[in-house]
Amino acid sequence: MNTVMRPVLGFSGYSGSGKTTLIEKLIKGLKAFGYRVAVIKHDVHDFEMDKEGKDTFRFSEAGADEVFISSGEKSARISSFPRTMEEMISECSYADIILIEGYKYADIKKIAVTSEKSGYELPCSGDSLEAVVTDDVSRYEGRVSIPVFYRNDAEKIIGFIRERYLR
Amino acid sequence: MNTVMRPVLGFSGYSGSGKTTLIEKLIKGLKAFGYRVAVIKHDVHDFEMDKEGKDTFRFSEAGADEVFISSGEKSARISSFPRTMEEMISECSYADIILIEGYKYADIKKIAVTSEKSGYELPCSGDSLEAVVTDDVSRYEGRVSIPVFYRNDAEKIIGFIRERYLR
Repeated sequence: MNTVMRPVLGFSGYSGSGKTTLIEKLIKGLKAFGYRVAVIKHDVHDFEMDKEGKDTFRFSEAGADEVFISSGEKSARISSFPRTMEEMISECSYADIILIEGYKYADIKKIAVTSEKSGYELPCSGDSLEAVVTDDVSRYEGRVSIPVFYRNDAEKIIGFIRERYLR
Repeated sequence: MNTVMRPVLGFSGYSGSGKTTLIEKLIKGLKAFGYRVAVIKHDVHDFEMDKEGKDTFRFSEAGADEVFISSGEKSARISSFPRTMEEMISECSYADIILIEGYKYADIKKIAVTSEKSGYELPCSGDSLEAVVTDDVSRYEGRVSIPVFYRNDAEKIIGFIRERYLR
């Protein structure tokens, strides 16, 4: 598949930085422009996806290695084994852009997310950082050579993403 | 992928026949023999897989076309579009056998599941039926030319599946 053609953009930030809320806003904004968006999340805990009592839950509990479900509207898959970020990216054939949360050490382009709550230290090495999103832009004035955006300014951040990755 | 090599077995039965409980037992039994088992379910309703408030749920709600998640233990994918049974089968590379629930008209080998609650009428045409699983074997004596099993006799049903599909 042409993974090379689809932009992959990571969001890196300490707990409380507002990563999830930011990604949520970016999904909405990018969808409004008609882009197809995939999100890949690394979970450090053991996520619980399904609901107790559902057939799919029962099949997983019984030990099924993978459980697939599809309705006329949507589909899902639960696997009893992990997948690497690269494997999931290679499955995202139906997407114009792939947003990634939580693979701190992955060699992908990243936007750093910081806030007063999480602190203003940048969470990853400068090499792969493309921009900073924060609640206090002044913290980075004259200190970084990449664009810095207010986290509430989703419109500008989306403009940046479109300009840089979707043209 | 060698989809041809992996046996695909459907379970067909009216509501209340005990399909889900049977599949659950078969998963446990087949896993005990070391087989890797995938299950594919067709949902006629609009299933709700994720839990409100979870990040993945928020991403789906925000409009993401696909949301992937992986921990060190397991992985999942939720897509905002349906997949066909054939597409899901072709993704089951990690399985020795694929159990299918709810694709009544699919051209696959099937086990019919019946019970007093659901009635004893066989739910699909005889051509693709490989066996019947029921709570009253006497209903089919001298009337069908395929094996008939008691639904509580998981051991025998698993023996039949191993003998016929996994040798």
